[in-house]
Amino acid sequence: MPASRNEQSRRAILDAAISMIGELGYDHISIEAIARQAGVGKQTIYRWWPSKGAVILEAATESLSAVVALPDTGDFVADIRTQLAAILELITTTGFGPAYRCLIAAGQSDPDLLRALFDRIIAPNIEDFRARTARAQQRGEMRADADWQTMRDLLYGVVEYRLIHAMPLEPEYLDGVLEIVFQGVR
Amino acid sequence: MPASRNEQSRRAILDAAISMIGELGYDHISIEAIARQAGVGKQTIYRWWPSKGAVILEAATESLSAVVALPDTGDFVADIRTQLAAILELITTTGFGPAYRCLIAAGQSDPDLLRALFDRIIAPNIEDFRARTARAQQRGEMRADADWQTMRDLLYGVVEYRLIHAMPLEPEYLDGVLEIVFQGVR
Repeated sequence: MPASRNEQSRRAILDAAISMIGELGYDHISIEAIARQAGVGKQTIYRWWPSKGAVILEAATESLSAVVALPDTGDFVADIRTQLAAILELITTTGFGPAYRCLIAAGQSDPDLLRALFDRIIAPNIEDFRARTARAQQRGEMRADADWQTMRDLLYGVVEYRLIHAMPLEPEYLDGVLEIVFQGVR
Repeated sequence: MPASRNEQSRRAILDAAISMIGELGYDHISIEAIARQAGVGKQTIYRWWPSKGAVILEAATESLSAVVALPDTGDFVADIRTQLAAILELITTTGFGPAYRCLIAAGQSDPDLLRALFDRIIAPNIEDFRARTARAQQRGEMRADADWQTMRDLLYGVVEYRLIHAMPLEPEYLDGVLEIVFQGVR
């Protein structure tokens, strides 16, 4: 665990990584450039992270975890909408969207990075969603036999799908998604 | 439109591209290697396609269009399941899955390729789905006011999401997806 001064450097490095990736793209940033922007030596970065992918993943994870908590107001649909709207906002207004797209791209030829992305970003979301779904089912907000894992894939998968294909991600889009997932099209 | 001998070369090139990408990955194949495997000169490939990405995209598009027709038996759920099961089979047993993952990856830093992928693969799927949905709505298989565009994003997006994250894609998975999209979880 880094001490306070280290924590400042760590924060500066992650902030530099996420803002530079939004401007320059994955291929055009280097550990050296991140270090320069963060005002640290590049050995500082290499001491904490083994690769550029690892820095970007940590920056994306932190930036997501700052907004991503699934609230529990007692209204499951509204809570999911609140969370997804915060994710859309993060995607469309910060370096998180470009960073995530770069990680997905790099992960297609780097299985370790893809697995780390799953472990750091998707697995916590699955656990969070599982816990919240159990309460929603107890309260009758969704059927007890409804398949929460597939439901989660659909909700977060469709956001990623539209991000990856550079399709619009307006908050209103979420209304149609939630309507189908909760009510069905039949 | 290539004549018959050209068509043979074209076929050999696309077959070589899709099989090599499954074995070697996008970064490790070259136009030269595809030409060698297809038994053509590399100028033949450059005459028809401007880049490696363009060859792979055409190979993926042809391989998908051979299986992807959305049937119309009068049972909309069964027809979607038939089509999605064929796509899963293609993804898991041929070079199409690796090729598609490579195109997604390359497309994140190549907007022209990403747009071409949309135009060649996603736009035809949207049009096909729109036409089939209109008939399903006329027959009462789905509500007239149900949002077919978001429904399509959910169905095909979740398959892509699981492919991109190297998550299992078993045909049984489709049952849960169709259950939620048609019935909802409420």
